[in-house]
Amino acid sequence: MKSYLKKSKDELLVLKAELEKQFEEIKKEKLNLDMSRGKPSAEQLDLSMGMMDVLNSSVDLKCELGTDCRNYGILTGIHDAKKLLADMSEVSVDNVIIYGNSSLNVMYDTVSRSYTHGVMGSTPWCKLDKVKFLCPVPGYDRHFAITQYFGIEMINVPMRETGPDMDTVEKLVSSDEAIKGIWCVPKYSNPQGISYSDETVRRFAALKPAAKDFRIYWDNAYCVHHLYEDDQDVILEILSECEKAGNPDMVYKFCSTSKISFPGSGVSVIAASKANIDEMQKQLTIQTIGHDKLNQLRHVRFFKNMDGITAHMKKHADILRPKFEAVLNILSNELGETETAEWISPKGGYFISFDSLEGCAKAIVKKCKEAGIVMTGAGATYPYGKDPLDTNIRIAPSFPSLDELTKAMEVFVLCVKLVSVDKLLESK
Amino acid sequence: MKSYLKKSKDELLVLKAELEKQFEEIKKEKLNLDMSRGKPSAEQLDLSMGMMDVLNSSVDLKCELGTDCRNYGILTGIHDAKKLLADMSEVSVDNVIIYGNSSLNVMYDTVSRSYTHGVMGSTPWCKLDKVKFLCPVPGYDRHFAITQYFGIEMINVPMRETGPDMDTVEKLVSSDEAIKGIWCVPKYSNPQGISYSDETVRRFAALKPAAKDFRIYWDNAYCVHHLYEDDQDVILEILSECEKAGNPDMVYKFCSTSKISFPGSGVSVIAASKANIDEMQKQLTIQTIGHDKLNQLRHVRFFKNMDGITAHMKKHADILRPKFEAVLNILSNELGETETAEWISPKGGYFISFDSLEGCAKAIVKKCKEAGIVMTGAGATYPYGKDPLDTNIRIAPSFPSLDELTKAMEVFVLCVKLVSVDKLLESK
Repeated sequence: MKSYLKKSKDELLVLKAELEKQFEEIKKEKLNLDMSRGKPSAEQLDLSMGMMDVLNSSVDLKCELGTDCRNYGILTGIHDAKKLLADMSEVSVDNVIIYGNSSLNVMYDTVSRSYTHGVMGSTPWCKLDKVKFLCPVPGYDRHFAITQYFGIEMINVPMRETGPDMDTVEKLVSSDEAIKGIWCVPKYSNPQGISYSDETVRRFAALKPAAKDFRIYWDNAYCVHHLYEDDQDVILEILSECEKAGNPDMVYKFCSTSKISFPGSGVSVIAASKANIDEMQKQLTIQTIGHDKLNQLRHVRFFKNMDGITAHMKKHADILRPKFEAVLNILSNELGETETAEWISPKGGYFISFDSLEGCAKAIVKKCKEAGIVMTGAGATYPYGKDPLDTNIRIAPSFPSLDELTKAMEVFVLCVKLVSVDKLLESK
Repeated sequence: MKSYLKKSKDELLVLKAELEKQFEEIKKEKLNLDMSRGKPSAEQLDLSMGMMDVLNSSVDLKCELGTDCRNYGILTGIHDAKKLLADMSEVSVDNVIIYGNSSLNVMYDTVSRSYTHGVMGSTPWCKLDKVKFLCPVPGYDRHFAITQYFGIEMINVPMRETGPDMDTVEKLVSSDEAIKGIWCVPKYSNPQGISYSDETVRRFAALKPAAKDFRIYWDNAYCVHHLYEDDQDVILEILSECEKAGNPDMVYKFCSTSKISFPGSGVSVIAASKANIDEMQKQLTIQTIGHDKLNQLRHVRFFKNMDGITAHMKKHADILRPKFEAVLNILSNELGETETAEWISPKGGYFISFDSLEGCAKAIVKKCKEAGIVMTGAGATYPYGKDPLDTNIRIAPSFPSLDELTKAMEVFVLCVKLVSVDKLLESK
């Protein structure tokens, strides 16, 4: 197999016929496999089954400070859970609020609160003519869905190997008062698995925003989600960097245990400066009497401390690593020499980001669907679902079994080849 | 003891001296008792301890339809939980969405969504000059806190024995397009324990609002919270009444298991027309991937069905009834003949509503605090914390033990007498 780019028209036509034959064979298998969402597999969920036993009718349901976790109260979370999740967030307990089961919900509520009530005294965004967010691309579709829902204009910022292009970020943030935020997944980013370099984090912390109510939405979703024990990314802690740079209030940091314990039944946390925390608390006291303290206690009793979480994440890694490696091997073996695709080998997170030849991503995803393989929609990694070059596809290896995944990837690379050949033939 | 109203100045002065002596004695006891919030007692929480055992590492964590409740997905709730809470809400499963642990949170989010995005196509409330809500008074402070937080003007509507004064409601709702909602606790209302009559419910259902986006916020918090097995209030089901009256979309109905299982670790539900549900779902899909399905499953496995909930609520009633009766007996024995107070004997719910002589409620609560008894702040049962006649005090008998409650009520009636005597002396 040589580079497809160097093949003649005739060679491509022969190849196309052969690939189409393979594709017809595969369609007959009537596959039904899903690589679209970053869901843990059942095997991973089994790792947390002990959490179903730590609370029962024979154990004390009081937290460390004596509060009965069964009753109302404790708006910002029980102290034990604050300690655990503050440690995971690498901040002090005074800088966290524990929320419900979904950090996405916390991010939505944070945007919503800024929209209805402003940010620490600023004009509520609903009273402004224009609000904009910067969106490093490719990125997380559910982030973009929130800002789109609130009519916030999204501006693409290209991702580099070190994080978002900071020249662009600095220029835009310092010159446009309408820019109120930026979506960041700083570690093992969704979908590329890129971790921000120290320089990138420091440049974030040192931003001089035109808007006083500008905030960095720092979604540290994959903070402990390493694939390798001996090769892990470490990023600088953004709250302390912001404080050092004289911008203590500029960042909201989000985490959750969704991909640590049980997605949908985890615990989420926001970390921010005391001034931000105080402001959030004022709103939170109107919104709820408190989140689920029994579930907070359940997490504390099961994980005990950060060492417990670290040990637990190694078990996740042992399950995920072979899947990532399988995907990367198939990509490399099947597409490596074709020069029709690029991808990044991440050291953590939940995704592999795949880039096809320009103008091919949509067609590849469509072709996969014909053969029973569901991929994340092409374009989903861009605001408004619009990938300007139509190249990016997010691969989520976690949910299928290794066998299913291998099968699905075989179909995927076949579809990539087919669509690439068609694309190359167009210009012949 | 005769009516205080008929006592002479001299008699009142003698009485005052005697009461003050008693008060000084009681202060020496340095009590620290709380009758301020509607929290279940530890004994009540013990009733649900079995819920801590129904899920464990040995049982299947799939719901009836086969979904693994440990993973992401199922935005609007697992079918089994929908069935249980739809039954409790007296509607069909197609008319409910299951939310997280707090119906207050759902109400907040409902107002917030209307504020940011309008109601089924109407202008978002944040774009309007004025939005108003009707507030039957006395009512629930946390309802009023939500509307106040969003800058919504609150208009008091007097409560009658049959529910809100419907002449006033009809007149206002049909004439003022700025009126977008009304807060209702239709059964065993907070704080009076009043249940709306059939006529009241029918008049609600037949409202002809000037505003197309007017909604009844029907907080059925105490739907199954009876005190007596043989004397229970039954109210008409508002969704079906609205449909009959040609107003199918006019109501949101809220419930939760907060005071059934564990407050803070319960499950909440909204019931509404299919059109409303569809609209909410559109927003919900942006806000979250789903609520805590394991907790939904926990509730289903523990209660099984409505019979299970009904049987469980009898146990709550057995604990609560003696407390309500103790409060009512002390009120009756100590204040009955004084003519300084009025109250209602509820057949369910969590509160007893107490009305002092005009201009006395604040002073009574203050006096109680001096003696170590925390009552709900006077005025809390009115929008903006302003009780125009300063008479209403909400008594919450559930949390203290019977002994503590008896003690606290002895102090309370003493404070009522003292403040009433002072008030009567003012006009002598």
